[in-house]
Amino acid sequence: MLDSYPYPIARVGVIGGGQLGRMLVMAAHRLGCEVVVLDPYLNSPAGQLAGHQIVGNYHDPARLRELVESTTVTTFEIEDIDTDTLIALEDEGHKIFPSPRLLAEIQDKYRQKQLFARNGIPTSDFIDMPEPDPAAFEAFGYPLVQKTRRGGYDGRGVAVMKSAADFDNCLKAPGLVERFVQASKELAVMVARGQDGDVRCYPVVEMEFSSGENILDRLLVPARIDDATTEAAQALAVRTVEAIDGIGIFGVELFLTDAGELLVNEIAPRTHNSGHYTIEASVTDQFEQHLRTVTNLPLGATDLLQPAVMLNLLGEPGYTGRPVIQGLADSLKVPGVAVQLYGKAETKPHRKMGHITVTAPTLELANERASAVSQTIKIVGEQPL
Amino acid sequence: MLDSYPYPIARVGVIGGGQLGRMLVMAAHRLGCEVVVLDPYLNSPAGQLAGHQIVGNYHDPARLRELVESTTVTTFEIEDIDTDTLIALEDEGHKIFPSPRLLAEIQDKYRQKQLFARNGIPTSDFIDMPEPDPAAFEAFGYPLVQKTRRGGYDGRGVAVMKSAADFDNCLKAPGLVERFVQASKELAVMVARGQDGDVRCYPVVEMEFSSGENILDRLLVPARIDDATTEAAQALAVRTVEAIDGIGIFGVELFLTDAGELLVNEIAPRTHNSGHYTIEASVTDQFEQHLRTVTNLPLGATDLLQPAVMLNLLGEPGYTGRPVIQGLADSLKVPGVAVQLYGKAETKPHRKMGHITVTAPTLELANERASAVSQTIKIVGEQPL
Repeated sequence: MLDSYPYPIARVGVIGGGQLGRMLVMAAHRLGCEVVVLDPYLNSPAGQLAGHQIVGNYHDPARLRELVESTTVTTFEIEDIDTDTLIALEDEGHKIFPSPRLLAEIQDKYRQKQLFARNGIPTSDFIDMPEPDPAAFEAFGYPLVQKTRRGGYDGRGVAVMKSAADFDNCLKAPGLVERFVQASKELAVMVARGQDGDVRCYPVVEMEFSSGENILDRLLVPARIDDATTEAAQALAVRTVEAIDGIGIFGVELFLTDAGELLVNEIAPRTHNSGHYTIEASVTDQFEQHLRTVTNLPLGATDLLQPAVMLNLLGEPGYTGRPVIQGLADSLKVPGVAVQLYGKAETKPHRKMGHITVTAPTLELANERASAVSQTIKIVGEQPL
Repeated sequence: MLDSYPYPIARVGVIGGGQLGRMLVMAAHRLGCEVVVLDPYLNSPAGQLAGHQIVGNYHDPARLRELVESTTVTTFEIEDIDTDTLIALEDEGHKIFPSPRLLAEIQDKYRQKQLFARNGIPTSDFIDMPEPDPAAFEAFGYPLVQKTRRGGYDGRGVAVMKSAADFDNCLKAPGLVERFVQASKELAVMVARGQDGDVRCYPVVEMEFSSGENILDRLLVPARIDDATTEAAQALAVRTVEAIDGIGIFGVELFLTDAGELLVNEIAPRTHNSGHYTIEASVTDQFEQHLRTVTNLPLGATDLLQPAVMLNLLGEPGYTGRPVIQGLADSLKVPGVAVQLYGKAETKPHRKMGHITVTAPTLELANERASAVSQTIKIVGEQPL
């Protein structure tokens, strides 16, 4: 008996209208899904391309209900969402992936660490820190990392403290402190898990962060690590997603310590910046893969077709206003350069405006070309700050 | 001095709102271009995804003018357009690629053959046939192919006649007759040529047509031909596009005769069904490549990442109404299968509803998997005919 689908295949609700949602919309159109986006800003990057956008806040129960009730399945591209409403909607029988109960645990960084600890997932030591207390910091011991429980991303909500002298720079919000990990590399693995439990694991990638800003600066795939570490990292990522019974796609960020140990740093229950390279370099990209999980279609192959290096295109400091892209033509002259722009009408310092993936027959070549391109392309704005 | 582009990079007008336009819109969004589509049917496959659709006919001078005047550059995904209006607009200084004068020659199949002959491009013998005349057919000699001058595609407007007994099936329209070519293979090559004359050539593909319907049934890349023939086919395709001073992307269809000779059958001055495989299998896909030509950006690499087989998903005979996709999940279980659906609200017998690309490490494996998928997936409709 053949399976049978109407056209459109599904009407997918997406909470969040940023670039991750935008690329999800593109995959949805290819696969024959309709999309409705919920985002507070009209004409959001994803809303521009979706058939319909509900303009509303992720914490507004009425708008969340409108989205979920008007679609066949709902997912999200951001984490800072009112999960109480989503849990109530799931309990009413609506399909929401990943599960809102899991999102509620992950969106709170202290509960996320508890989730790891409860499931035997190796992660750095941590303690609860409802309000910053110098004695408690001292007792835990420096160097440490303080994180706010909610809403941090791209380096926001994270403070690295080398010693007690740094305490004055602490975050004034409920959070946790965790052991500072001396990592020789920061790695990440995308893992997709279907509603039937089928798991597909992507290659291990290596992330480089720009000092100071803590936004992913350059991503290399495959990671320059030995085969045993690769296998261990993939096994750990899969074990993490299975342990938390995740359905959807997950970005698992890992530390490879100087001692060669693998620790799970954080998990993102969604498509992830570290998976953008899959659009050009993988058989099935992370966005289509995620859609396959939420629409209950079989998962796709995750083979890497070519080594790749991904660069985020961030708004240059010192500019705002309408974006101006410098060096675009010069960058596109380089073989294997794919540019993706996010449709943002205004640039701001360090705002993610787009990304570039460079594919090449070898990682060395891709990295050389990425270095050249990173010197060439710049997103400035019409208004100096 | 760095080049500098505003965002959006360009506002591109696309005449025609079918699947070729739809995939062009997707590439445009990635590259940071806005798109306006002109199509007579509201909510056309491309119009659904473009920011704006002008609803109007390709032969309506006012609507063509509206499109061209509201965009920075105009292109087309179909050929049956009022070229007099486009030529006038080009003469006023508007950018239109490929050139409307070239389109006017190509859209008339007799003039297209003259264009080949005038430029020394090898093609089968032909004569003008303003109205079907049995004596003239006889004098030209059977077997022959009669074609209408205008509007033919996917097997429409073409009649193959083995002998004088077939004359009763001739097309009652102005056209040409050409020598029937005993071809061992039908090949095609996509060629992109920029405004600066830079040319990029894609691999040679092999096309199989379903008997009777004459719609591309299966495409294999790379074509199973020897290296010398591959080089000769690519050289001929490039020479053809250069000879006609084409700017844009072109699908060059070739016959490889039983005698090993290469003849140009037809040229399409646009993205082409035989280039869909480039989305998954090539470094730069045909849609982005075409956009790079029309927006005057440098052309991308055309390397093939993996062998591929492409299948058109045609509406099953015997059905119309809202599409129902049978065997979608079973097809997606096969590794390397990518499905692209075109957003058409109604199926009809043999209507192009979507396509599938199967990539694999070897062409044999891709072809085996494509055969399995072609037995599995079917687009039927809610209403039997």
